[in-house]
Amino acid sequence: MYQHEVKIRVRYADTDQMGYVYYGNYATYYEVARVESLRSLGLTYKQLEEGGVMMPVLENTSKFIAPGRYDELLTVRVTIKEMPGVRITFHYEIYDESDKLIHEGHTLLVFVKMDTGRPCRMPEKMTQLLEPFFEK
Amino acid sequence: MYQHEVKIRVRYADTDQMGYVYYGNYATYYEVARVESLRSLGLTYKQLEEGGVMMPVLENTSKFIAPGRYDELLTVRVTIKEMPGVRITFHYEIYDESDKLIHEGHTLLVFVKMDTGRPCRMPEKMTQLLEPFFEK
Amino acid sequence: MYQHEVKIRVRYADTDQMGYVYYGNYATYYEVARVESLRSLGLTYKQLEEGGVMMPVLENTSKFIAPGRYDELLTVRVTIKEMPGVRITFHYEIYDESDKLIHEGHTLLVFVKMDTGRPCRMPEKMTQLLEPFFEK
Amino acid sequence: MYQHEVKIRVRYADTDQMGYVYYGNYATYYEVARVESLRSLGLTYKQLEEGGVMMPVLENTSKFIAPGRYDELLTVRVTIKEMPGVRITFHYEIYDESDKLIHEGHTLLVFVKMDTGRPCRMPEKMTQLLEPFFEK
Repeated sequence: MYQHEVKIRVRYADTDQMGYVYYGNYATYYEVARVESLRSLGLTYKQLEEGGVMMPVLENTSKFIAPGRYDELLTVRVTIKEMPGVRITFHYEIYDESDKLIHEGHTLLVFVKMDTGRPCRMPEKMTQLLEPFFEK
Repeated sequence: MYQHEVKIRVRYADTDQMGYVYYGNYATYYEVARVESLRSLGLTYKQLEEGGVMMPVLENTSKFIAPGRYDELLTVRVTIKEMPGVRITFHYEIYDESDKLIHEGHTLLVFVKMDTGRPCRMPEKMTQLLEPFFEK
Repeated sequence: MYQHEVKIRVRYADTDQMGYVYYGNYATYYEVARVESLRSLGLTYKQLEEGGVMMPVLENTSKFIAPGRYDELLTVRVTIKEMPGVRITFHYEIYDESDKLIHEGHTLLVFVKMDTGRPCRMPEKMTQLLEPFFEK
Repeated sequence: MYQHEVKIRVRYADTDQMGYVYYGNYATYYEVARVESLRSLGLTYKQLEEGGVMMPVLENTSKFIAPGRYDELLTVRVTIKEMPGVRITFHYEIYDESDKLIHEGHTLLVFVKMDTGRPCRMPEKMTQLLEPFFEK
């Protein structure tokens, strides 16, 4: 299992007239959490794309437990529970400033070779970086 | 069952550097589809809020079958399969210009009284408008 | 002079917790107005890019006279006042449902060849379509 | 003169199919820069709104010198050049990771009492915090 936490400040642009974080904006928080979790491993998503592999999203689920609010410094805990192969699943839990769980979700992505548009296995470097977290 | 179709043109702002509709932007397409499906019934979400009832989102799922692309005129088919009570579920199917299914999703929302912040039943006017579609 | 009008419905996603259209979202309304004004001439921005020419933005100004509000069907009047060469300027006036002017702005864009990244003259087809509006 | 610098990482959500930061998203970067510059003074915009004062935008200008790109850690330098009264102007310069100036802009905002909707002077606390930077 690999786990990482990211802090994200809610922007005014993220709110809607209900005074909540607009429900579609959590997908961007997930993206930041995924990208920063890779960076903390020693890899950037930008490098993956430069190496010819992109990671489009196949599935996404979100559960809105309580509203996110303007200017809160949210904590997004991102978890990879299983060693990825051709696909990778990220799980998210979002906590507000009082450590209350306000949101849960997960995203399934697939590794795709940009030149052929076909699914491929996770790039070697990423495999090496993740393996230590999934050894028995 | 109540069903309605909406056309949505993909904006440049909706795309990302993969050349696809950014995955978080489908939530906005869902919102447009929900709002226009209510308007076609003779009701606006704006009127609901002015009447003191709002509809925050509780759950959302999305399945990305094929990418949405810039300037495509997408068709979003929105379906309410069951007569709503305190909660309402909207299902979506999105088709590209060649009528290919590229996306599926659903959203669960709850009716909430804005003054108390508590869940409530679907407003009377909306019940009257929807009932004919769910009679046996 | 070439002028065109587009209707844009304010989405919930566009609002912020002030209950107004978030100030950054007018840029997207401008984009829709530009693209639809070209389409009404018989040309799409997508075709321009497919023909190897893109139009990045060089300058933008916005004047916020009164707030845009949720669910309003705004009218965006877009005007090209001068025959474009290497650069093109679009002017915008936005009116609310009671025909009150709520917003003004303009955007300066440049034609760029995508293969070289260098500025170029407006594509021939676009010149032919616009010329009749600027003859003396 | 008051000056503050903020780092902002470009998100995938911010990009468009040109591979650039979509031009409308700089307004959000400006917002983050404004809010963090106030926070560094010892004040939050959230507190201003809780104190009954909001700051809608009246004017905005943007000059796009070179594209912002995915995953770059941009530096936004925000400057208040004149002691604000009823209105306040923020100037921005945005630098990429190689310290190249890629963007300039400014935003004019007005202080508004939320109960009456009328312009008002800058709140007392903010005046006290800013004054030392504008003394002769």
